[in-house]
Amino acid sequence: MTIVSEHDIEELRFSLKNRLGEALLLTSQEDMLRYCRDWHGDVTSSAVAVIRPRSTKEVSDTVRACAELGLAIIPQGGNTGLVLGGIPDEPKRQIVLSLERMNAIRTIDSDDFSAVVEAGCILSEFKDAVQDKGMFFPLSLGAQGSCRIGGNVSTNAGGINVLRYGMTRELVLGLEVVLPDGTIWNGLSTLRKDNRGIDLKQLFIGAEGTLGIITAVSVKLYPNPEHVETALLGLNSLDDAIKLYRRARRECCDLMSAFEFMPPVAFTLAIEAIPDLKMPIAGDYPAYVLMEISGSGLVDTADLMGRFLEGVMEDGLVLDGVIASSRAQAQSLWLFREGMNEGQALRGSHMRTDISVPLSKLAAFVAEAEAELAEKLPECLAVSYGHVGDGNVHLNVLPPNGATPQEREAFIYKSKTLVNEVLDRYVGSISAEHGIGRLKRSDFESRLSDVQRRMITGLKNAFDPDLRMNPGCQITLQPDS
Amino acid sequence: MTIVSEHDIEELRFSLKNRLGEALLLTSQEDMLRYCRDWHGDVTSSAVAVIRPRSTKEVSDTVRACAELGLAIIPQGGNTGLVLGGIPDEPKRQIVLSLERMNAIRTIDSDDFSAVVEAGCILSEFKDAVQDKGMFFPLSLGAQGSCRIGGNVSTNAGGINVLRYGMTRELVLGLEVVLPDGTIWNGLSTLRKDNRGIDLKQLFIGAEGTLGIITAVSVKLYPNPEHVETALLGLNSLDDAIKLYRRARRECCDLMSAFEFMPPVAFTLAIEAIPDLKMPIAGDYPAYVLMEISGSGLVDTADLMGRFLEGVMEDGLVLDGVIASSRAQAQSLWLFREGMNEGQALRGSHMRTDISVPLSKLAAFVAEAEAELAEKLPECLAVSYGHVGDGNVHLNVLPPNGATPQEREAFIYKSKTLVNEVLDRYVGSISAEHGIGRLKRSDFESRLSDVQRRMITGLKNAFDPDLRMNPGCQITLQPDS
Repeated sequence: MTIVSEHDIEELRFSLKNRLGEALLLTSQEDMLRYCRDWHGDVTSSAVAVIRPRSTKEVSDTVRACAELGLAIIPQGGNTGLVLGGIPDEPKRQIVLSLERMNAIRTIDSDDFSAVVEAGCILSEFKDAVQDKGMFFPLSLGAQGSCRIGGNVSTNAGGINVLRYGMTRELVLGLEVVLPDGTIWNGLSTLRKDNRGIDLKQLFIGAEGTLGIITAVSVKLYPNPEHVETALLGLNSLDDAIKLYRRARRECCDLMSAFEFMPPVAFTLAIEAIPDLKMPIAGDYPAYVLMEISGSGLVDTADLMGRFLEGVMEDGLVLDGVIASSRAQAQSLWLFREGMNEGQALRGSHMRTDISVPLSKLAAFVAEAEAELAEKLPECLAVSYGHVGDGNVHLNVLPPNGATPQEREAFIYKSKTLVNEVLDRYVGSISAEHGIGRLKRSDFESRLSDVQRRMITGLKNAFDPDLRMNPGCQITLQPDS
Repeated sequence: MTIVSEHDIEELRFSLKNRLGEALLLTSQEDMLRYCRDWHGDVTSSAVAVIRPRSTKEVSDTVRACAELGLAIIPQGGNTGLVLGGIPDEPKRQIVLSLERMNAIRTIDSDDFSAVVEAGCILSEFKDAVQDKGMFFPLSLGAQGSCRIGGNVSTNAGGINVLRYGMTRELVLGLEVVLPDGTIWNGLSTLRKDNRGIDLKQLFIGAEGTLGIITAVSVKLYPNPEHVETALLGLNSLDDAIKLYRRARRECCDLMSAFEFMPPVAFTLAIEAIPDLKMPIAGDYPAYVLMEISGSGLVDTADLMGRFLEGVMEDGLVLDGVIASSRAQAQSLWLFREGMNEGQALRGSHMRTDISVPLSKLAAFVAEAEAELAEKLPECLAVSYGHVGDGNVHLNVLPPNGATPQEREAFIYKSKTLVNEVLDRYVGSISAEHGIGRLKRSDFESRLSDVQRRMITGLKNAFDPDLRMNPGCQITLQPDS
């Protein structure tokens, strides 16, 4: 690897400006900072430039210019990723390509239940525009006020509505992609059924920009769920929560739209972050579930939620519960779920996971991992919560208050190793919804079989033989490997 | 291309038997016939051998043996495909690899709502086994008594439940695949959320065996819909049927499981095939819809269907209708939908399409295509029906009774050209659910953009550089292309 000097970088910047025009580039450290620091603030990097194209053509021009200059490209949406997939790791050889200026909503068609939106559109802005037309785009996650739809697709984002509507992949009808050679592929179909051979768009969903740059997306829309019932329930255990989920799937059919598990400490953490939150249930319970049923038109969700809870309380599966009587009350119940994330952040750097195991093994996995943590790292606080209906749990480990940064780092390393060892015994996934990025790359690669690695390498060679697209993300490859 | 003599073929058969054992091979024309003739009986071919492995290992052995002998492989499931994707087209250079002996159901897990099943299991047998455990596998299509699950996945089969549960792709959690070099990839995860990078299984779904051979599949299961309401409705037009669909999506939410459009001639055709069918509605209407709402547990589908129909009849959107009052009655309503296919077959060879356009354009497309057909081919009968809720219509054209085979062929060619021309104006798909195979290859290739072709060629080169996997299916490639 040749050394790149500051002088070389200035020359590269000059060449980029020449080719693309001053207006597309940011090059000062100050301007580039927010594109080069991750969402959690754990990592701060730099780049030759941040390039912000305004059209698909300008994305293509940028890709071609970078190829000529031997620069690699880190595509970036809202920079809300949790695995460092959009942060440069070789600042002198990489540019950040931010899609944030490509934020138009091209069409919303309520007759077709579909829309076409550019990659840089902020998720919540898209959802609002869709709702204004009486429709619903189901992808819902904490970062929705900042994340951008292209990033959601590139990372195949999950969130709280997966159990009813699927991951982002299942919401995508078509893509527009700028390929590593600068070619534009217009695959923005809104057809709901189209079975013409290999489904090329699937390659780019979840690839985190390693095979091309998604510039626009066509998606499915749904009828707006006019009736939403939200309930917070107290239970005896995670095991009972999973029993409750199974029963809800049968009794409430496809109308359940969220099923979130929270341990008692969730409320402590939420109140640390949002002090005026009031506990909505009087007693203390070992486990809590936040559950939502939603529907539109003639479906009576209130009656359904009422009868469902009546049955499960009669059977002792749910010990106590509260159903929100207004939209505002529902939002305040959700504040606990969101506040617990903020509360964890306030306790300082900690170990975060994004695990999935088969639903039938989730309770056993959490019990085993928490028992090992209690034995081997008794100073730490384990917090297990999440979208358990999908078998997805965030088992996080918080070092004790007052731990030094070095101690925290050691706790994080030890607890991650310990949890992953338990996870491997359960043949689970180290990334249920967040992706791989750079943060999970080595954990990912160490679990890859030879045949998987060969397939991924084959794809990279076919699409991006010069390794210009987000190198270092997901997998380590050397040219000519 | 070198000439292959009968002597050479006998040598190849001898070598295959030597390597794989006599028990795996069929080589007589008589034994091979049912694997080499398509479902409609339009094409009869032959092969060097039909090989029927009993295990993933034997599939792998077969792939390696064929590579050594320079033979190409045509993977085949139940041989119910409609586009000649599983029929050899170079009988002296190809073997048929039938998965029919790999028909075990490995697991059905009602706690996880998942199952693992081998590629050769017949769809209806799998569905029955799942139902015995109180669960439901939603894929439903006419051929389900003969088609096999591996073929369903390889062709990304559609069917009548797509609008609620999606195409086969959306039901697949994982795959086991034998790659073109004989390597076995075990990707049979049952995790519902797993976001570890590029989703490799997506490559094989819908690839019709051109990238590898699917030997087993893990799938999602659903709660068994215990309450099913089936209604046959008379309407004024296809346009009204689409209005009805839109309204049903809003008012019945995600509980609508089927929405099939039929023209009046459907009933004539059905009664030609099943003479004792009785028309369930008294009057004659220009358009009919067969609609199903289904649910489980506490969801009151009967009430929902009743209130929905009351509203749409009051508004004049539905003119008359009948709701099945028993499972038997519901089945007899479905007999019209199935019988109309048989009735078309009884009228002799005809032009079949499998078209999708955006829902908002479906009625206009059908009107335009039918008007052109009426003007230019007035002797023929156009029959447009299908899963209109997905924008999918089968616009078939039946030559007049008494037409000679040559005349039929000319009518089929002319009507296909005409319909495709209209379709291209609507930017629709020539294959909504059937795939490409060999039958639609030239229509597919002539519409491929350069960038699509490059991506597909790149994938083939990466996975199957020697073009051994179903060559001639989907795309025409020459070695070293």
